[in-house]
Amino acid sequence: MIIDCHGHFTTVPTSLREYRKMQVATCEAGQTSDFAPPPDFSDDELRERLENAQLGLMKERGIDLTLFSPIAGLMGHHQGNEALSRHWSRICNDLVHRVSNLYPDRFAPVCQLPQSPGIPPQNCIEELERCVSELGFVGCNLNPDPSGGHWTDPPLTDRWWYPLFEKLAELEVPAMIHVSGSCNPNFHHTGAHYLNGDTTAFMQFLLSDLFRDFPTLKFVIPHGGGAVPYHWGRYRGLAQDLNRPPLAELLMENVFFDTCVYHQPGIDLLTEVIPAENILFGSEMVGAVRSVDPETGHYFDDTRRYVEALTGLSEVDRKKIYEGNARRVYPQLDKRLREQEKITTPA
Amino acid sequence: MIIDCHGHFTTVPTSLREYRKMQVATCEAGQTSDFAPPPDFSDDELRERLENAQLGLMKERGIDLTLFSPIAGLMGHHQGNEALSRHWSRICNDLVHRVSNLYPDRFAPVCQLPQSPGIPPQNCIEELERCVSELGFVGCNLNPDPSGGHWTDPPLTDRWWYPLFEKLAELEVPAMIHVSGSCNPNFHHTGAHYLNGDTTAFMQFLLSDLFRDFPTLKFVIPHGGGAVPYHWGRYRGLAQDLNRPPLAELLMENVFFDTCVYHQPGIDLLTEVIPAENILFGSEMVGAVRSVDPETGHYFDDTRRYVEALTGLSEVDRKKIYEGNARRVYPQLDKRLREQEKITTPA
Repeated sequence: MIIDCHGHFTTVPTSLREYRKMQVATCEAGQTSDFAPPPDFSDDELRERLENAQLGLMKERGIDLTLFSPIAGLMGHHQGNEALSRHWSRICNDLVHRVSNLYPDRFAPVCQLPQSPGIPPQNCIEELERCVSELGFVGCNLNPDPSGGHWTDPPLTDRWWYPLFEKLAELEVPAMIHVSGSCNPNFHHTGAHYLNGDTTAFMQFLLSDLFRDFPTLKFVIPHGGGAVPYHWGRYRGLAQDLNRPPLAELLMENVFFDTCVYHQPGIDLLTEVIPAENILFGSEMVGAVRSVDPETGHYFDDTRRYVEALTGLSEVDRKKIYEGNARRVYPQLDKRLREQEKITTPA
Repeated sequence: MIIDCHGHFTTVPTSLREYRKMQVATCEAGQTSDFAPPPDFSDDELRERLENAQLGLMKERGIDLTLFSPIAGLMGHHQGNEALSRHWSRICNDLVHRVSNLYPDRFAPVCQLPQSPGIPPQNCIEELERCVSELGFVGCNLNPDPSGGHWTDPPLTDRWWYPLFEKLAELEVPAMIHVSGSCNPNFHHTGAHYLNGDTTAFMQFLLSDLFRDFPTLKFVIPHGGGAVPYHWGRYRGLAQDLNRPPLAELLMENVFFDTCVYHQPGIDLLTEVIPAENILFGSEMVGAVRSVDPETGHYFDDTRRYVEALTGLSEVDRKKIYEGNARRVYPQLDKRLREQEKITTPA
């Protein structure tokens, strides 16, 4: 089985993006509560959106299941206020939940959190619990910079985040570290802000004893870990110079990287320096890069090709990257799959 | 000949660091001009500092010449005010100039600029001209984020920076894109802010027509280009999706990467995906990581070992990386070396 740990519902009906624009404009104009309800979509409309995109590509590429979350770039935690963030998060999470009900064996739902800059992360617990305990979500996306490129909240390792981490640990739900759009003109979202967020979070973890406080907490750092695996020697050296424990001991039970690196040499490096136990297959499809690589004739984001082409990878390790690690890092996914297996293969 | 394009005078006498602390404290307490003069050092003190560190390591590693600039982490453009930045930059640049006079065949001077957040970059021209035209500096370090981790100034591709770029082009001086310390608790300086600065600058260049306006302007992106080579497929794809010209055409005459990547797989990837013409040997020694890699028994920052170990690199390309590209990207360095050659080998 091949599980893609990183997919967003980027192909939502256009009216949802228009609704969001209107909603933000309304909020910025002074309406701070009682926001209008979202547009309605038929099941057929959603199916069409998915079958012509994510589902079609999954079939082509042999991907069985995608951990599916709302559009990262549209989480927009920096827009509006906390109430708007909560309202919008519910809409987005409900939509992803609906998709996972339409295709329960193809999509497992992952939620966004109603973060807002300067607002304590514990205020996200209610929506997290709703998603996980009531709706069967298996993971969440956690924005390390709700300000959208101004980095005004404390580092992820600050006690500011601890109440949320306690809940994540209790629910056995990992978080993918994922920034949203950037309102800082210095940072292009997918070309700079995303990768910077990944790199920044890893270094925060390196400096802290967070995983001594939360030994079971798990984070997936997407986009192949930002700059981290490419600079793995730098990080091993920094840990040593700063009298931190070796990385293996410090964080490799808790920090994982996906394979969203869009060329063969990048995946070669990732799998050379990071243990197979810490790599989860992912493609962020349909996402950051949507076109065909003229050098290969294949989609840039067809990351399965790169993983398949790894000659030095054992079949045991490939299976970990494709399935085993995801089921270990996302215990609620494993439960969901076991239940589905029970249903589809009755005794 | 082996030229290291990236060295900082990180081993300055302790009293200079103490002086800087005092200077910043004084400025923050309200003194905004007439700053106290720096401590004095004897030539012997400077020689001892260098021979036990940079010079000794250069000798051990077979590096002939280092492009030597003030401590990046201590530029501190976000500290104090513009007058302090100017005062401090002169001190640091004069010190580097003195080093290059003590060892003219071992160090070529590269200056820091008296940047200050919110202050037009053209205000740096006076110090740049002093360094290049009067003192023989061959390059400069340009901070893309003088705010020290808040990113409050416009992107490098904004016209805000153009007067400085005009002067750089006129003087034939490249800039290394190099942030300084971070005053944002989210960003560890060498573990996050440096690499984020590199990644961010590259994406800014990708989005703009800066090099149509300045066809001869050259930037060195240090630390192996941040996250960029590892995500080269992503950047090729983004350029294509955004209807930008291919990267080779868009910026490869103007943007270069150093080899400050502290493990073999990183250097393997860098030289696999980036043309040899765009790579300059660098080690950032003595810098970000100072210890020995227990996996190899050699210093993490002994980047020459990684370049030497590249079996797929032709001798022609290796010579470009070690010497040819540096002489091409830094025309003032080439002139300096030609003059020195004239002196040492009279007709």
